[in-house]
Amino acid sequence: MSLVFNLTLITIITLNAIAIILHTVPSINRQHERLFRDFELFSVIFFTVEYVLRLWVCVENENYHHPVWGRIKYIFSATGIIDFLAIFPFYFTLFATDLAVVRILRLFRIFRLFRVTRYSHAFKVIQDVLVDKKEELILSVTFVVFMLIIVSSIVYYVEHPAQPDIFSSIPATMWWGVNAMTTVGYGDMHPITPLGKFLGGMAAILGLSLFALPTGIIASGFAEHIRAHKAPVKHRCPHCGKEF
Amino acid sequence: MSLVFNLTLITIITLNAIAIILHTVPSINRQHERLFRDFELFSVIFFTVEYVLRLWVCVENENYHHPVWGRIKYIFSATGIIDFLAIFPFYFTLFATDLAVVRILRLFRIFRLFRVTRYSHAFKVIQDVLVDKKEELILSVTFVVFMLIIVSSIVYYVEHPAQPDIFSSIPATMWWGVNAMTTVGYGDMHPITPLGKFLGGMAAILGLSLFALPTGIIASGFAEHIRAHKAPVKHRCPHCGKEF
Amino acid sequence: MSLVFNLTLITIITLNAIAIILHTVPSINRQHERLFRDFELFSVIFFTVEYVLRLWVCVENENYHHPVWGRIKYIFSATGIIDFLAIFPFYFTLFATDLAVVRILRLFRIFRLFRVTRYSHAFKVIQDVLVDKKEELILSVTFVVFMLIIVSSIVYYVEHPAQPDIFSSIPATMWWGVNAMTTVGYGDMHPITPLGKFLGGMAAILGLSLFALPTGIIASGFAEHIRAHKAPVKHRCPHCGKEF
Amino acid sequence: MSLVFNLTLITIITLNAIAIILHTVPSINRQHERLFRDFELFSVIFFTVEYVLRLWVCVENENYHHPVWGRIKYIFSATGIIDFLAIFPFYFTLFATDLAVVRILRLFRIFRLFRVTRYSHAFKVIQDVLVDKKEELILSVTFVVFMLIIVSSIVYYVEHPAQPDIFSSIPATMWWGVNAMTTVGYGDMHPITPLGKFLGGMAAILGLSLFALPTGIIASGFAEHIRAHKAPVKHRCPHCGKEF
Repeated sequence: MSLVFNLTLITIITLNAIAIILHTVPSINRQHERLFRDFELFSVIFFTVEYVLRLWVCVENENYHHPVWGRIKYIFSATGIIDFLAIFPFYFTLFATDLAVVRILRLFRIFRLFRVTRYSHAFKVIQDVLVDKKEELILSVTFVVFMLIIVSSIVYYVEHPAQPDIFSSIPATMWWGVNAMTTVGYGDMHPITPLGKFLGGMAAILGLSLFALPTGIIASGFAEHIRAHKAPVKHRCPHCGKEF
Repeated sequence: MSLVFNLTLITIITLNAIAIILHTVPSINRQHERLFRDFELFSVIFFTVEYVLRLWVCVENENYHHPVWGRIKYIFSATGIIDFLAIFPFYFTLFATDLAVVRILRLFRIFRLFRVTRYSHAFKVIQDVLVDKKEELILSVTFVVFMLIIVSSIVYYVEHPAQPDIFSSIPATMWWGVNAMTTVGYGDMHPITPLGKFLGGMAAILGLSLFALPTGIIASGFAEHIRAHKAPVKHRCPHCGKEF
Repeated sequence: MSLVFNLTLITIITLNAIAIILHTVPSINRQHERLFRDFELFSVIFFTVEYVLRLWVCVENENYHHPVWGRIKYIFSATGIIDFLAIFPFYFTLFATDLAVVRILRLFRIFRLFRVTRYSHAFKVIQDVLVDKKEELILSVTFVVFMLIIVSSIVYYVEHPAQPDIFSSIPATMWWGVNAMTTVGYGDMHPITPLGKFLGGMAAILGLSLFALPTGIIASGFAEHIRAHKAPVKHRCPHCGKEF
Repeated sequence: MSLVFNLTLITIITLNAIAIILHTVPSINRQHERLFRDFELFSVIFFTVEYVLRLWVCVENENYHHPVWGRIKYIFSATGIIDFLAIFPFYFTLFATDLAVVRILRLFRIFRLFRVTRYSHAFKVIQDVLVDKKEELILSVTFVVFMLIIVSSIVYYVEHPAQPDIFSSIPATMWWGVNAMTTVGYGDMHPITPLGKFLGGMAAILGLSLFALPTGIIASGFAEHIRAHKAPVKHRCPHCGKEF
């Protein structure tokens, strides 16, 4: 029963994601406008019913067992908010015109995609490792952001006189900086002075090296997780039969 | 005997790959048209004979031991299909004109390159690790694809009003998204609004961090594999003093 | 008390970093010129007081316990120099015109950002791993630099005749080289001869592979660190049966 | 004595690398032509004397102990060939005009840079790990090359009809392929058809994932190396004093 419901839910979430994506292609949207509208209506009804039912039964979970406060707590939980945001924009548009903000709110339905991954055993393992290494990973990203600010500030002062329109401010230079340090390199802006090029090269090497940190942290996290969850080896002496 | 045959096979597969590649260079193709045609004919005959022989002897393998169903099972196995696709396009063209689909089918011969790696001990190790960590690796790639969809959808709504011709739809934005998150960055499309640039930078950092997951998983997989296959440590029973 | 002071310090450092960044955006600077000047004045006074106080109490730390030499030693320590450079440019500009060098000196305040990370436990772990693996990491970067020199020199001799204005010298080619090996690839210069393209492809594969070295080193460093700092396993003596 | 000689050698090798690099910058070369020529002469004499001395004493090493065959063996060893190539081009030019091939031969002096790393303890560790994991690393690179061939062949057939001048042949497409899979992405060529873009995105994800393999292999190699070289722990029971 539960399996059938979950499979149905995964199918509808996936179809919703596909509909949201294809809906933006003008030629497809024009051809299947009716289909998109009907599927939207069906989805909203389905998700509304699901939302109401979850709100009804959530008191059985001991985290939300109080009939009033438990349900209010559920409404403001992460799951509750995402579920609400998936249906809210539709009802909002019944009373309002089609605003840009509504379209973006609609995107929250896509976050439901991640629910699909919950049914996998590997999800638990990856989550455990990431939670366990949370502090180191946050610090690594903080390092990256700090180095980005420092690198961009220095390169701004070096390149601004040579290219005042392109390296126009530190925030503008940070767009270059993040693409240099993550090695994206769109080519829309890059240093042209010798010192700027030298610093740009350093930034790329530094960036790639900094991203070695989270990789190393995650690798050791997985190794640790495996060791911690392995059944401890029991030794039994084959000569006298005793365990130790 | 087996060694000589395998070396011959590797040589012919390698020469085939080179022929397929060079065949597309107009100047080389014009000069050596005859050679390419003759080598093609020779290869097809060689691979046809090999295919028939393998089909003949496959019943000796206990997976395919039934004289009729075993052979049919072999025909529809991964190896059997690749082997068939390597020779099929040639015979197809005897009766049909040179269609685009035939040229693509011909490419299947290149997949034979991977056979070469089977003869390496390291192949077994890498395969073991990848199979062992299959679930985590698939989930990592799923995460990457989900984040790609979410990032592209958000950036589409942010950049579409500023660059309606470039960020024309979510699928079009996904081309930017995949190149941002994998840090390719061709430069043919990139956000120009401040919010779009901020999201673009986030996407690059997120992408590089997400690709730390498979690396960490594989690293711990290799470490685990080594520990599992190491020569077992000699134990001495503390009760009776004998080694085992 | 100490916590309140540290939080105040972190807030002021962060606001300073934001001010330095936004100060360079012409439209924001014009609108809030007064605010920036006042905050600058406040920051300088705050950091000056902090600097004098730290200099006053540094003798309590046993590294700087001598009343005169200890304080001089503190002034020339890494922390002392950064703290001095954060306030020096302001006093310098009271007597001099606004030179470019002063603006760059002012950036040193941004380095104070890293102080924020000191309050994290993870900082100690990451620092331990990096210090422990210092020699291997320096050697990895040395390898990268050497390969960069070699690759750029060879590609210069190959591409110079075809693109004399773009690949104009080895230092100019090194700008291409560092962006090829770190996979940034701005697209402002790239080889066009077949041999140059082949070498360019090799450089990208080599670069990515070389950056696998520091990642692997850091990963094993973290794994080692975890093992060394784990709660020691309880041992039971097999001779007398007691735990220890 | 040996230390002084090694430091002198490292200095001269480093200065040589700098000279080779700066020599190609027209403005610097014009200004210091005399200096470059004199330093070149000095280097050649120094390296010639070093080469003759090494050839003289190499018989003391037991690998080359035979007075005649040992010296011949040394001449054709890796070190011997690099040392010879570092001085040979100079003598060659005494009798020949300044050919392009001579300039490239001169670059072999740059390979001497790697000698510098030999004096580091970390070099031995990194070398051990790379030699130990040789087979897996070679296979990883082989996978990358095979996937590059397959991806480029498929994308050629997909993109050739749309961009016949850019995706003109499989070798030309491989230049795109290697830059897509290593995520360099110069932007000089990229797919424009929907299917080509889809395959291009797959290629980038596949490429980054494949480069996770060598990283994982190296990480586990370092971990293994550390474990193998740690002094085994001796346990001594604190109650009865016996070791076990």
